[in-house]
Amino acid sequence: MATLVAPEDFSPGEDALAINKACQGWGTDEKAIILILGHRNAAQRKQIRLAYQEIYLKDLTKQLKSELSGDFERAVCHWILDPVERDAVLANEALKKARPDYRVILETAYMKSPEELLAVKRTYQFLYKRSLEEDVASHTTGDMRRLLIAVVSVYRYEGEEIDEGVAHSEANILGDEIQGGALKGEEIIRILSTRSKTQLIATFNNYKQIHGTSITKLLCNTINNMGTDEDTLSRVIITRAEKDLKEMKELYLERNSRSLDDAVSSETTGDYKAFLLTLLGNQEF
Amino acid sequence: MATLVAPEDFSPGEDALAINKACQGWGTDEKAIILILGHRNAAQRKQIRLAYQEIYLKDLTKQLKSELSGDFERAVCHWILDPVERDAVLANEALKKARPDYRVILETAYMKSPEELLAVKRTYQFLYKRSLEEDVASHTTGDMRRLLIAVVSVYRYEGEEIDEGVAHSEANILGDEIQGGALKGEEIIRILSTRSKTQLIATFNNYKQIHGTSITKLLCNTINNMGTDEDTLSRVIITRAEKDLKEMKELYLERNSRSLDDAVSSETTGDYKAFLLTLLGNQEF
Repeated sequence: MATLVAPEDFSPGEDALAINKACQGWGTDEKAIILILGHRNAAQRKQIRLAYQEIYLKDLTKQLKSELSGDFERAVCHWILDPVERDAVLANEALKKARPDYRVILETAYMKSPEELLAVKRTYQFLYKRSLEEDVASHTTGDMRRLLIAVVSVYRYEGEEIDEGVAHSEANILGDEIQGGALKGEEIIRILSTRSKTQLIATFNNYKQIHGTSITKLLCNTINNMGTDEDTLSRVIITRAEKDLKEMKELYLERNSRSLDDAVSSETTGDYKAFLLTLLGNQEF
Repeated sequence: MATLVAPEDFSPGEDALAINKACQGWGTDEKAIILILGHRNAAQRKQIRLAYQEIYLKDLTKQLKSELSGDFERAVCHWILDPVERDAVLANEALKKARPDYRVILETAYMKSPEELLAVKRTYQFLYKRSLEEDVASHTTGDMRRLLIAVVSVYRYEGEEIDEGVAHSEANILGDEIQGGALKGEEIIRILSTRSKTQLIATFNNYKQIHGTSITKLLCNTINNMGTDEDTLSRVIITRAEKDLKEMKELYLERNSRSLDDAVSSETTGDYKAFLLTLLGNQEF
């Protein structure tokens, strides 16, 4: 369930006017921007962008970029994009970092359905005049590059059929190839990139039975060892606030004995903090 | 231009009746089948299949499979499929051979636009409940497997933009990695699979300027060395008869000093020969 609190009735024109007013004069009224945009769903935000363009003949994203700054600016500008466009932008930004953030690419490849991934790839090409595959290839190296190109390229089968024989034999192949926790090996890449998600779950279950340990734990550790990423918090909140952030909050509390709201409160400050807490469903902001 | 000669006026119901009559009694009237199906375009053949199903409650492909045999049966059954379905079936048959026919897969990946390739992959999943990528992976080995998975997976950028700097530097990379004419090397696979076709042409032109020899010649030789394939003739005629077979005939005559019709006449016999010559635009069959 979503954490976002958005009113059913709203007027895109009035919102556009209010946002423009918040941008007038010396300084910007960040609170007003949070109060509006932090309480509008994707369809509403799109209407506001269109209304703003129509009334002021200016792109709302550009306007906000020039008025806001830092983490808050990034978060708001990501937030107002269409979800598919945002995924393409996040993937591009992750690749352009001095140390590319592999997790964003893996999330894009694995958390989406084949059709959703395709939509992100189409949008990526529209925005950047290159394919996501090309940019992954030119911003990564070594084994990780081979894995990442493979997982973003594939158009995975989405059916529910499972081949138990394949699940068993490929669990053994994974066991043979995994050495020292590295994501190496041609067969590992082939299995992780081409098999359907349902088939992979069956293979992982077989792996656990055979080896007594969970392969997903191993994979997650490998990925976490890739280094920390200060944008993860904001990315997760922004991309999930309209989907399943409520469940993620519960999971977070269970695992960390601390609420996600607490974590956000202690790790962020100012408008950025107020904005993230608003998306987390806190009404006082 | 097409070589297929199809009448503008036709009746799917009458064709279905005539085909059914040709299948009645002892033996089959192959000539009648060639006369009808060898002169109908894709849209017309689809209507005939639907009419046949409606009148006889039987699938026309199954009916023809039970009546015909050998190369002629295969050719007719491929011919009556929708083009996208046919590409999926041809790819599947090429992979299931004792020696998989890599050329069919490479043709599928390179001769189609990204959207056409995607349509073939969707149809492949619908027909076989697996992805094309998975089947390529499980029926091929070694370097060729890495190349084939990569080229069928990718959703290539289709725009016209060229980066001349990239074309130059990747022409050098290709030169460095090509050793003894083998299609090895991670960078070769990365370049051939992720770059847009327009970009590849620019890179190949650079390669020719730098190395004085054409890379496409080298690639074609490598692919031709993969062994002969007795189905190529039939596949090319069936898949191109409605598109550009006229141009291919001219090219064939230029290169071989012999017409394609002559080649077909001397290398095939009986109904199979009559059928292929009909698709090549010969009216006497």
